[in-house]
Amino acid sequence: MIDLRSDTVTKPDEAMREAARDADVGDDVYGEDPTVNDLERRAATAVGTEAAMFVPTGTMGNQIAARVHTEPGQEVLAERESHVVRYELGGLAQHSGLQLRRLDGGDRGVPTAEQVADGVVEEDLHRPGTGLLCLENTHNVRGGVAITPTEIAAAADVARERDVPVHLDGARVFNAAVALDVPVTGITAHVDSVMFCLSKGLGAPVGSILAGSEPFVAQARRTRKLFGGGMRQVGLIAAPGLRALDNVTDFERDHERARRLADGLDGVDGFDVQTPETNIVLVDVSGTGLEPSVVLERLRDREVLATTVGETAIRFCTHRNVSGEDIRRALERVEAVPFE
Amino acid sequence: MIDLRSDTVTKPDEAMREAARDADVGDDVYGEDPTVNDLERRAATAVGTEAAMFVPTGTMGNQIAARVHTEPGQEVLAERESHVVRYELGGLAQHSGLQLRRLDGGDRGVPTAEQVADGVVEEDLHRPGTGLLCLENTHNVRGGVAITPTEIAAAADVARERDVPVHLDGARVFNAAVALDVPVTGITAHVDSVMFCLSKGLGAPVGSILAGSEPFVAQARRTRKLFGGGMRQVGLIAAPGLRALDNVTDFERDHERARRLADGLDGVDGFDVQTPETNIVLVDVSGTGLEPSVVLERLRDREVLATTVGETAIRFCTHRNVSGEDIRRALERVEAVPFE
Amino acid sequence: MIDLRSDTVTKPDEAMREAARDADVGDDVYGEDPTVNDLERRAATAVGTEAAMFVPTGTMGNQIAARVHTEPGQEVLAERESHVVRYELGGLAQHSGLQLRRLDGGDRGVPTAEQVADGVVEEDLHRPGTGLLCLENTHNVRGGVAITPTEIAAAADVARERDVPVHLDGARVFNAAVALDVPVTGITAHVDSVMFCLSKGLGAPVGSILAGSEPFVAQARRTRKLFGGGMRQVGLIAAPGLRALDNVTDFERDHERARRLADGLDGVDGFDVQTPETNIVLVDVSGTGLEPSVVLERLRDREVLATTVGETAIRFCTHRNVSGEDIRRALERVEAVPFE
Amino acid sequence: MIDLRSDTVTKPDEAMREAARDADVGDDVYGEDPTVNDLERRAATAVGTEAAMFVPTGTMGNQIAARVHTEPGQEVLAERESHVVRYELGGLAQHSGLQLRRLDGGDRGVPTAEQVADGVVEEDLHRPGTGLLCLENTHNVRGGVAITPTEIAAAADVARERDVPVHLDGARVFNAAVALDVPVTGITAHVDSVMFCLSKGLGAPVGSILAGSEPFVAQARRTRKLFGGGMRQVGLIAAPGLRALDNVTDFERDHERARRLADGLDGVDGFDVQTPETNIVLVDVSGTGLEPSVVLERLRDREVLATTVGETAIRFCTHRNVSGEDIRRALERVEAVPFE
Repeated sequence: MIDLRSDTVTKPDEAMREAARDADVGDDVYGEDPTVNDLERRAATAVGTEAAMFVPTGTMGNQIAARVHTEPGQEVLAERESHVVRYELGGLAQHSGLQLRRLDGGDRGVPTAEQVADGVVEEDLHRPGTGLLCLENTHNVRGGVAITPTEIAAAADVARERDVPVHLDGARVFNAAVALDVPVTGITAHVDSVMFCLSKGLGAPVGSILAGSEPFVAQARRTRKLFGGGMRQVGLIAAPGLRALDNVTDFERDHERARRLADGLDGVDGFDVQTPETNIVLVDVSGTGLEPSVVLERLRDREVLATTVGETAIRFCTHRNVSGEDIRRALERVEAVPFE
Repeated sequence: MIDLRSDTVTKPDEAMREAARDADVGDDVYGEDPTVNDLERRAATAVGTEAAMFVPTGTMGNQIAARVHTEPGQEVLAERESHVVRYELGGLAQHSGLQLRRLDGGDRGVPTAEQVADGVVEEDLHRPGTGLLCLENTHNVRGGVAITPTEIAAAADVARERDVPVHLDGARVFNAAVALDVPVTGITAHVDSVMFCLSKGLGAPVGSILAGSEPFVAQARRTRKLFGGGMRQVGLIAAPGLRALDNVTDFERDHERARRLADGLDGVDGFDVQTPETNIVLVDVSGTGLEPSVVLERLRDREVLATTVGETAIRFCTHRNVSGEDIRRALERVEAVPFE
Repeated sequence: MIDLRSDTVTKPDEAMREAARDADVGDDVYGEDPTVNDLERRAATAVGTEAAMFVPTGTMGNQIAARVHTEPGQEVLAERESHVVRYELGGLAQHSGLQLRRLDGGDRGVPTAEQVADGVVEEDLHRPGTGLLCLENTHNVRGGVAITPTEIAAAADVARERDVPVHLDGARVFNAAVALDVPVTGITAHVDSVMFCLSKGLGAPVGSILAGSEPFVAQARRTRKLFGGGMRQVGLIAAPGLRALDNVTDFERDHERARRLADGLDGVDGFDVQTPETNIVLVDVSGTGLEPSVVLERLRDREVLATTVGETAIRFCTHRNVSGEDIRRALERVEAVPFE
Repeated sequence: MIDLRSDTVTKPDEAMREAARDADVGDDVYGEDPTVNDLERRAATAVGTEAAMFVPTGTMGNQIAARVHTEPGQEVLAERESHVVRYELGGLAQHSGLQLRRLDGGDRGVPTAEQVADGVVEEDLHRPGTGLLCLENTHNVRGGVAITPTEIAAAADVARERDVPVHLDGARVFNAAVALDVPVTGITAHVDSVMFCLSKGLGAPVGSILAGSEPFVAQARRTRKLFGGGMRQVGLIAAPGLRALDNVTDFERDHERARRLADGLDGVDGFDVQTPETNIVLVDVSGTGLEPSVVLERLRDREVLATTVGETAIRFCTHRNVSGEDIRRALERVEAVPFE
């Protein structure tokens, strides 16, 4: 099987496994796990914030951020195809009582300054004011789009000028930085809080980081406990995460492989391939006349795994466990599939 | 003052006041208020449902309906400019944990069948399924648009075929029926529950009705208590409501006055007047170069009251307390206002 | 039928009905109903607060108070048999996310200073701090107990010294004041907010008052809208309420009749009668060997209505619609009932 | 330092660390992590349920259980000093809208059948029905009390006969089983769901198990995602957990050391020591005339760590990282502390 479903399937490498085994640990509820403490400092530095906190999942990181930034009944602005809107079970409403206002970020998955300005509402007797803007980078469902610091700033500045805080779902923000050839801090400088995943392209087995100001993270620690995210000898999973941060995956290689994959897929009959910016390749398969789920089944029969996105597309994702040889073989297999 | 701000300002007439004074009352928490019981039966008949319940406000009626129809975390589809989205303080999220999906109903304020079909999402591991479609008729913010039974059915049928219930915010549904020359039941037949206001154009001082199936209303009674809407000798306010239902305002007259008002306003420099379908006249005042709030102030100086809607428009509303003479004088006064 | 179930069954008298008919009204959502404005000023004066607000029900008044005073996750202290605990459908948790801590107020239904002191918890990493103390006066389920200013102060002062605000469910606080021969303000001076009902012993058909400081009431108005309690020409129901406040029922007479009723019931075989302090008479009927609901049925067969309270007691309630002659006849009828 | 604060401070042993390093992993969101799958099967067998699910913390396990078993507004019965009441930030109200009813389980921390019967309320128009009974075994705050199967059954059967499901917070249920010399299933057979911690006495670094019927666990998986508990290559932490389950700590040894510690502490002036049933030793230190926090500081100066519980007690906890020699030295140090 060549598994191109997601970079969440990456398996920890030997060095990460060794790091787990050898981790210096303590009880993180008491703040005594030295490895988590190292990781949190290291992560805060990486994204240029005062503080950071380990969370078991990116979803929890996003939901805690929303809860800490807002008050019940406020509106939250988020791109209509973003993770926090599509894949978190309505948590913004359930956990924080927020009314969603979706912005259409178009092909690049990022709202414009004008959209944000139009979307921000002032609190009055009848209307909930806007409490948060959520951005996502890279934007997953739009095809791993690497949103530039300029784009982020355009949207975020408008919100912040109106006293609306900005949270970045940066699950794959390291991919974005590499693709854009900017430091991660060039992106995160424009937002109030950022979540990024250790467990996706960075390759760690478990965990994400939520980062922001000292007071934000202090409040977030309490909210993490409410959500059931306050774990014990976290060092065992923080150590691989720390290792992943200290030896960042060669994302440029992953991206290059995505481009090679895209080039190859472009020749397949009925495939409409979007040029990848990072490690995600979106293919509109409506030209095959088949449902995406049927296309996936045929690929699976040839031992290539991908996922569906929306009504007509499938997604391939490159990552550190996919070699150049895997790409070559995957293309061979896809080309051999009968789509008609 | 000629008060054209809203039909909510209508004052009860003598007959309603007499009805209040003479009302046969009892304790409605025990179900023993004969006047409320009469009103609820009468209201159910009016909209063609099995049962109906008195609620102190339309907002409570809408919010109870949403709570009864759904489960926490589901999505609710609603027109982007509808009352439940704009003017209920994020209640859908706060009371019921619902994730909002706004549909753009365009100039007529009603989503198409295709928009509804696209907006309904199936429940899966990651995504909250759709739990409710809310429609509004007449559509207030779009300018009192009278949505036809065909338009309602187009949107509603698509939802119901997918097992998504439909609630109609029919605060002004009697205006719609009159304007369209159809029975109210021709509109409400296509939805699962409907709220309509006694306290708007119908002219009663207080109260709205929430109507639907027997089991729906039974559950709604319990939820009304949770919201603090279970009152005592309700007959005193139900009696004017019953009178309003039995002697329905001459809405055609109100609508005709709205058209005359619109015709007159059309001549004002800088006013872009939308042709009214019912009792609401929207005027885009951006041509005056003035903020809507400034326009309102100048009107108020001449003893004409209206309200703002959105960024550039003002709204005039005719109702039973506005005479033909009032319209004539209002136009004189508006024409005398210096807008430059 | 002699209806002794509750003072909520009181029907508006002629003067109240006339007041309703003649009420000067306006749209209260715009703050323009002069009668409500009068009533709110009058009510604030009556309980000695800066401001007051009309609400459709006592339940809504209590729930709004809890929401305004607290933050999600805090604890609320309330007497175990109080209305807010027993009869409001878990609203404290549902509307405000509050964790309930019940205090056992014993026979008098009022927690001691020591109980409050023990019940207040400080916020820490693991524990929600205490956000509110709710008291009730008179205490309904304990039998209309008139809590003295000293008792109120003992409990309230301890809370307030710890920065925990105190809300009084004073649904029947006027009964308490009369029974204790103190001004109502002697009771309400010790709390931060108070709700009292116009629709119980005071005899108005509908409505309650929520009173407190200016900022508290300002916030409460917004929350009332969220709950769907922002009505229109409220003057029609405010006028009877105002009349009820200006011509307060002769509660001493109601209380005297309760004492006569209690005396008479004391002779009934198997009845264990609690001496009434106000207008409520509790009778433990376990001595009859019958379920309270069966006792009620036999009373109903003789045209006397009462209610059950808890597992073994029934409750009789005197009020302005029960005459001395009614009491005499009710006793005759009860004595004629075969309980064996 | 001899760390007797909690068994949560246990550090993974070499075998667990090796197991982590060598774990066969996959993406658990896809259900493809073989080690988690093994652990979940193994855990279900251990507690005798159809199914089980890994959760990052015991708090999340308890909160998910409450959410799945109940509906908003219901009451939850829980022992007044239990973890779910004291240490989970009001989550029952915040996550699930539940109204808390605390039962006083007395010295043994377990409510009687009669208390449960009295505490269960039927749903009616005014009152939320009871939706859940939570028990805890061993009971932490009461001093690691090992609740017997008979005690559990007495409380649980009464609830279940009334269609109220029962959840067991079995964070330390293995300690209870060993102390009582019964199989764990002898305890868990009486409840509908059970949570137990891998990260306490069992010694695993991270994680807990939530177990119950197939439909319960299926629903719990969805709720886990809502809470942000759906992690990726969980095998890395599941492997130490699996190892902990397969090589259960010698709890009898931990308990024996607790008894030795208790015996030694009994001689300290001003210490009132509760005889331990499992691995927790409670000492009332009010006899020293010092605040518990001051006592802790003096112990810390001598390199012995404990925690406070309530107003007057401190808690010592034995666990696999505390040797017999540690106990001996801890006692020497405590005896040398000047308490006066």
